[in-house]
Amino acid sequence: MKTQLSALDWAPEFAQGYVKDLRVRWALEEAGLSYEAVLLDDAARAGDAYRTWQPFGQVPAYRDGEVEMFESGAILLHLAAKSEALAPRDPAGFAKATSWVIAALNSVEPAVQNLVHLDVFYAHEAWAKARRPQAEIELSGRLEKLANWLGAKDYLLDRFTAGDLMMATVLREVPDLHAYSATLDRYLERCLARPAFERALDAQMRAFRAS
Amino acid sequence: MKTQLSALDWAPEFAQGYVKDLRVRWALEEAGLSYEAVLLDDAARAGDAYRTWQPFGQVPAYRDGEVEMFESGAILLHLAAKSEALAPRDPAGFAKATSWVIAALNSVEPAVQNLVHLDVFYAHEAWAKARRPQAEIELSGRLEKLANWLGAKDYLLDRFTAGDLMMATVLREVPDLHAYSATLDRYLERCLARPAFERALDAQMRAFRAS
Repeated sequence: MKTQLSALDWAPEFAQGYVKDLRVRWALEEAGLSYEAVLLDDAARAGDAYRTWQPFGQVPAYRDGEVEMFESGAILLHLAAKSEALAPRDPAGFAKATSWVIAALNSVEPAVQNLVHLDVFYAHEAWAKARRPQAEIELSGRLEKLANWLGAKDYLLDRFTAGDLMMATVLREVPDLHAYSATLDRYLERCLARPAFERALDAQMRAFRAS
Repeated sequence: MKTQLSALDWAPEFAQGYVKDLRVRWALEEAGLSYEAVLLDDAARAGDAYRTWQPFGQVPAYRDGEVEMFESGAILLHLAAKSEALAPRDPAGFAKATSWVIAALNSVEPAVQNLVHLDVFYAHEAWAKARRPQAEIELSGRLEKLANWLGAKDYLLDRFTAGDLMMATVLREVPDLHAYSATLDRYLERCLARPAFERALDAQMRAFRAS
């Protein structure tokens, strides 16, 4: 069977280009693997049939001839195990790439999303204004350590991996990343300049333009 | 070489029994793999030597004869690939277990931690009181979907996997889980009754009692 990836048939403007199927589209493009998007509307996402594929009703969910799974991070690791384009084949290198995929998801993304949610969902709440400075400090601490690790390197490891892919999708949501770190800003630009990212972004946006 | 896991030599009382090396200790116990804990004080965690092992200065970091890595989720997946005690060997089953490890980390834990942080770090801030009801609603939505998935099953899949291990460590931090879901409360109790969990918890606490 053809590889299938669930995605949204429509998203509000602030989310267009940021829905998380983008990560998997990007990984599939890096790996040179073809796929078809299964576009879902809100009713389909909330339906029982989809919940057996994705228990939280989110996108993306994924299936190929061998596996059926969900969570962008999990799918990315599955693809990384299949394709050298996403991670080294040796166990030591694969383990490091895995570490960075999870670090992006669990040590950086929560701090980013806390800030993004304040701005996107709670901008007019008084508590959100009072909360924002502390959320910025928390994010700043994480980004400083990340920038220190990166230093003068092009990528988190000695080559592009799924860890960079995941980290870039997390960092591109930081409001005014350059104000936190010029190093990370250049790193992000380097990652997003990859042709596979452009193709993935275009594929997600195409679905929205058609709807 | 003996498998090494970094952990804290001391933690404030609210964190004792909850530091994230617990996840890896538990996984190692389930897999029947021996290890030694490398106990770190604050200065060691902040030092340059440790940052080459764990770029954010957090615990746990892990090394064995084959790999050196960090992030509890990544280490858990590495161990799951090595041991049938943590995930089925067939690709379809392994992919589903991986999905649940990541779902615990990325679709459930952020909502839990948002609430926990309000209570632990910001309890006396006016903005935290105003924020709490919305944080409860966000968490409640995730837990409801999780409980629906679980239904009458003992575990998230048809057997215990690393996904349950990770989910249990996330759920045990929910303040008053029973108020959200009796199903999840029973599920958590079932997971935490495993002898491997008891041994892991005891090992983490032993370091604190000695300090």
